[in-house]
Amino acid sequence: MSKNTQVLIDSLPEGKLSESNYKLVESPMPEASEGEVLVKTIAFAITAGTRAGLQGSASYAGAPQTGIVMNSLGVGEVIAGDNSSFPVGMKVQARTGWQSYSVHKTSELTEIPEGTDPLHYLGPLGINGLTAYFGLLEVGQPKTGETVMVSAAAGSVGHMVGQIAKLKECNVVGVCGTDVKCEKLISDLGFDAAVNYKEANFRQTLKESTPNGVDVYFDNTGGMILGSALFRMNTGGRIACCGVVSQYDTSSPEPGPKGIPGLLVNKRIQMQGFIVFDFASEYETARSEIIKWIDSGKLKILTDEVKGLEAAPTAFVDLLAGGNIGTRIVRLDLE
Amino acid sequence: MSKNTQVLIDSLPEGKLSESNYKLVESPMPEASEGEVLVKTIAFAITAGTRAGLQGSASYAGAPQTGIVMNSLGVGEVIAGDNSSFPVGMKVQARTGWQSYSVHKTSELTEIPEGTDPLHYLGPLGINGLTAYFGLLEVGQPKTGETVMVSAAAGSVGHMVGQIAKLKECNVVGVCGTDVKCEKLISDLGFDAAVNYKEANFRQTLKESTPNGVDVYFDNTGGMILGSALFRMNTGGRIACCGVVSQYDTSSPEPGPKGIPGLLVNKRIQMQGFIVFDFASEYETARSEIIKWIDSGKLKILTDEVKGLEAAPTAFVDLLAGGNIGTRIVRLDLE
Repeated sequence: MSKNTQVLIDSLPEGKLSESNYKLVESPMPEASEGEVLVKTIAFAITAGTRAGLQGSASYAGAPQTGIVMNSLGVGEVIAGDNSSFPVGMKVQARTGWQSYSVHKTSELTEIPEGTDPLHYLGPLGINGLTAYFGLLEVGQPKTGETVMVSAAAGSVGHMVGQIAKLKECNVVGVCGTDVKCEKLISDLGFDAAVNYKEANFRQTLKESTPNGVDVYFDNTGGMILGSALFRMNTGGRIACCGVVSQYDTSSPEPGPKGIPGLLVNKRIQMQGFIVFDFASEYETARSEIIKWIDSGKLKILTDEVKGLEAAPTAFVDLLAGGNIGTRIVRLDLE
Repeated sequence: MSKNTQVLIDSLPEGKLSESNYKLVESPMPEASEGEVLVKTIAFAITAGTRAGLQGSASYAGAPQTGIVMNSLGVGEVIAGDNSSFPVGMKVQARTGWQSYSVHKTSELTEIPEGTDPLHYLGPLGINGLTAYFGLLEVGQPKTGETVMVSAAAGSVGHMVGQIAKLKECNVVGVCGTDVKCEKLISDLGFDAAVNYKEANFRQTLKESTPNGVDVYFDNTGGMILGSALFRMNTGGRIACCGVVSQYDTSSPEPGPKGIPGLLVNKRIQMQGFIVFDFASEYETARSEIIKWIDSGKLKILTDEVKGLEAAPTAFVDLLAGGNIGTRIVRLDLE
């Protein structure tokens, strides 16, 4: 146990991300200084948003760098340190990155209460769940009976957006990239409709699936799907801009969709970009509501588990190609 | 006085609008039925937004049609009718269109109080002034000390947006298409800076003119200027989407700017489309505030007058090429 296994960013992708952009290394075991704790990773989430951090220009995730551990949210157990608030044995949520051990200031940690599955802090109680919660409810402001559309609907955020919208008694239409995902959204998660954007007749099917138009569009993708959504938006509609997965896995993002800003004017549409961190002061309120939904069976958790650090690069490349259903989690506790 | 002179839409423009898309005709004098009044046009405004009504797809102005009188807001005098609320001799604002006489239901009229110059109802008290007022104050929500950027800044809406922003103690940067306009915005209207978007170094000059970034962007143009504004927006910035003049005079609008929705997410930007009609219940409150600004000399009125109905088509073509400074008004009362 004297070594730390890490996945480093070895090179920045020129076009699409590939496994060769990463390098698995053995490093010395990190040590906790005063005020810090050492965390052993249980699992971490792989999410599309971290791809933006590898692109040429700086994003909110900062400018891209090589030679560093790949960034991700994880959960783990405190195994060393001298802090009464985060004692040895406590489970925590932290930005562990893709590595087996990491050192953290306690201000960077979130305690996971005893009795709660730590993996929930990578899903419904983690950044993905909170993003779905605040983006839909605070930014999208759906009202009972309205139609909510969500893209990347089988993804870690999308599958929760749709379920929360159903809890708010909305009609829910998901957009995703395979018929298997469409089927799962409808039969397992209660979506009213789901549309495969890779089908040639996508725009027509989307139209038929939204007979009353769209009042709230939760956009995880940008690009063509955003362009199609604009034409289905009702007057006074709201677009919660959460992510741009269609543009992450490339070095030259496309122009924005036609109809911006023309359709925004004609239909008085609001587009609002948001980042979940802006709602940090309300996380605990949200988590207590989400826990109630989970406990009562109203919110289903969809995870897509992968085993072992060495599987992470392939799991990320595959996720960017739409390979995941639900939250993709890399588990180190099964090794 | 038995004839009505009218300018009809003779054909829809294939590319850019030209004078040949219009036809001047003599028609029978219209008559007011019960509940209607006959209005003699004093003047009407020519605004870029009506160009959208001539494009292939339906806009908020409705689907395009030929053989009808060209649409516009005007002011005139009631010369016949039997209505005690709108008696003969009263000055009114109405959608007169490009013609010398028109018949209106009284519900479509706005009374112009005695003692007020009717032409003000085509400028600061008309749709343009109200659009500037509500778009800036209600949609843009500028705060003291913030930087407000406005495109088509020498246009009928833009030159008022900038002045109202100065009244609210903001830093104001206008974007327009000639150096003469830039000079006028700064020296006559008190803008802090003005940038000519046709200059090769526009983006660099815009950057230098907005050292603290942009908090509110009032977008009259869309296209490249919107794209440039996105890169100058501060976190939490607001874009009031008012019009898309860069895309009106064409049959095939461009794609939207790069950076949508990516920059919206990173910088938590809000884009909100609006149409002034949505604020109709607040028009009179706005007008009384605007009148105070005019009377105290704090809001300057910039008009660009043209004489005679037959001059209207050329005046419109020229306006779409950026030929106007201030509100372009076609006066029939000088003939």
